Amino acid sequence: MTPRAYRAVKDCHVVVGYKAYLQLLDGDLTRGLLAGKEIISSGMTQELSRAGRAIEKALAGNDVCLISSGDPGIYGMAGVILELLGKEGAPKIPIEIVPGVTAASSCASLLGAPLMNDFAVISLSDLLTDVKVIEKRIRSACQGDFVIVFYNPKSKKRTKPLEMAWQILSKYRSLRTPVGIVRNARRADEEVILVSLKDLLTVKQIDMGATVIVGNSKTFLKGKYMITPRGYEVKENKNAKFQTPNPKSIPMANSEQPR
Amino acid sequence: MTPRAYRAVKDCHVVVGYKAYLQLLDGDLTRGLLAGKEIISSGMTQELSRAGRAIEKALAGNDVCLISSGDPGIYGMAGVILELLGKEGAPKIPIEIVPGVTAASSCASLLGAPLMNDFAVISLSDLLTDVKVIEKRIRSACQGDFVIVFYNPKSKKRTKPLEMAWQILSKYRSLRTPVGIVRNARRADEEVILVSLKDLLTVKQIDMGATVIVGNSKTFLKGKYMITPRGYEVKENKNAKFQTPNPKSIPMANSEQPR
Repeated sequence: MTPRAYRAVKDCHVVVGYKAYLQLLDGDLTRGLLAGKEIISSGMTQELSRAGRAIEKALAGNDVCLISSGDPGIYGMAGVILELLGKEGAPKIPIEIVPGVTAASSCASLLGAPLMNDFAVISLSDLLTDVKVIEKRIRSACQGDFVIVFYNPKSKKRTKPLEMAWQILSKYRSLRTPVGIVRNARRADEEVILVSLKDLLTVKQIDMGATVIVGNSKTFLKGKYMITPRGYEVKENKNAKFQTPNPKSIPMANSEQPR
Repeated sequence: MTPRAYRAVKDCHVVVGYKAYLQLLDGDLTRGLLAGKEIISSGMTQELSRAGRAIEKALAGNDVCLISSGDPGIYGMAGVILELLGKEGAPKIPIEIVPGVTAASSCASLLGAPLMNDFAVISLSDLLTDVKVIEKRIRSACQGDFVIVFYNPKSKKRTKPLEMAWQILSKYRSLRTPVGIVRNARRADEEVILVSLKDLLTVKQIDMGATVIVGNSKTFLKGKYMITPRGYEVKENKNAKFQTPNPKSIPMANSEQPR
């Protein structure tokens, strides 16, 4: 949570959000950051009504925080509120979108450095997007040799998109391609799993709280780290010695050109 | 900057980074957050030697912060340090990667909500990636109808990749496609520009500090906002009144199904 996000919540009158996210802010919704505020919580798929309630509260004179996890602009509430307010007859309300650390970044940081080259972010939620469009996205991302970050990979009821994704991935990528799965990053029940593409569908921990990162053709594993090379020439340098500080002994790789 | 990143810098002995980023942390590198610390700064393209210096300092017993802007795992220093430490004979040093708010998120938040659907992140820096690979990435991203976020779009010397990108984009996307350009997001000289694809190459403010976001086939402009729809049915509802709070009067759009 950035200081800017913290201050926005601290200074507002009304907080609106999906119940589980509000509990991340403040365990019982009554003390800490949410103390003294009006709390409007709701369940999943209630994004439009939450945004509607936020608008009502703002029209009544309140400063309102509408909460998303990660970054509200990436599949979050930012677009919902802007679309609603963009409709004919909608009231004019000042909006500020406070960016955050999205799941791709937080999960990548726990896996190593899988996003050091171009990547595609794809949601496997077929509630809002036609499955044929999702297929097209995955296929194109494979053809472009992007690292692929899957959001909303699977839920109890929604398992087919991930299976479909695996079918497409396995056509384009080696089954040895590293795949990183992170569940509930930086929360009490965080899990970090590294598998090869071959075994992706066997990973039981994949649910709505998980993010799946599939390497590109150059991604490799080194120890516990998943790394996609940026393109630097990191050569083996048998003469390199990491010694106590002496600027003249620093190995300079050949690819470093002065500008 | 997240509290976690702040604490990491505050608690360390040595800070290593590209000079301009260190100045963002602390204007003259001697007071504020960097007060009392050893500062090792260098110019652009010196990523490998910065990482090498960080390793040396760590081996000498220091806690070292290696600084990236945005998120260190997205084209940043995370991969550099992990690749170096992964080489045979490299020392074993504990590493912690602290994720941040990447440019895609911060810039999107200033443009509206362009990343509400699947997007591809592509670096136009051909210093490290072959231009044919970049072309393939752009073409595939177009074929998949991804919103496209271009990092490192252009510099004084490096103008051809952006022109090449425009050539490809203009084949696949309408010239009316909204494009958002944000330069130096949240810094004193921040600039936010909205154009249509047709005029992208005329925008003078595109440089290494800028991020360019090209809409997909459904991205639209509403007032000053660039919005990519998520897929919610946000219908015109002439009966909807935004009134003082009354839960029963909240318009429920047809697409909301109880789970």
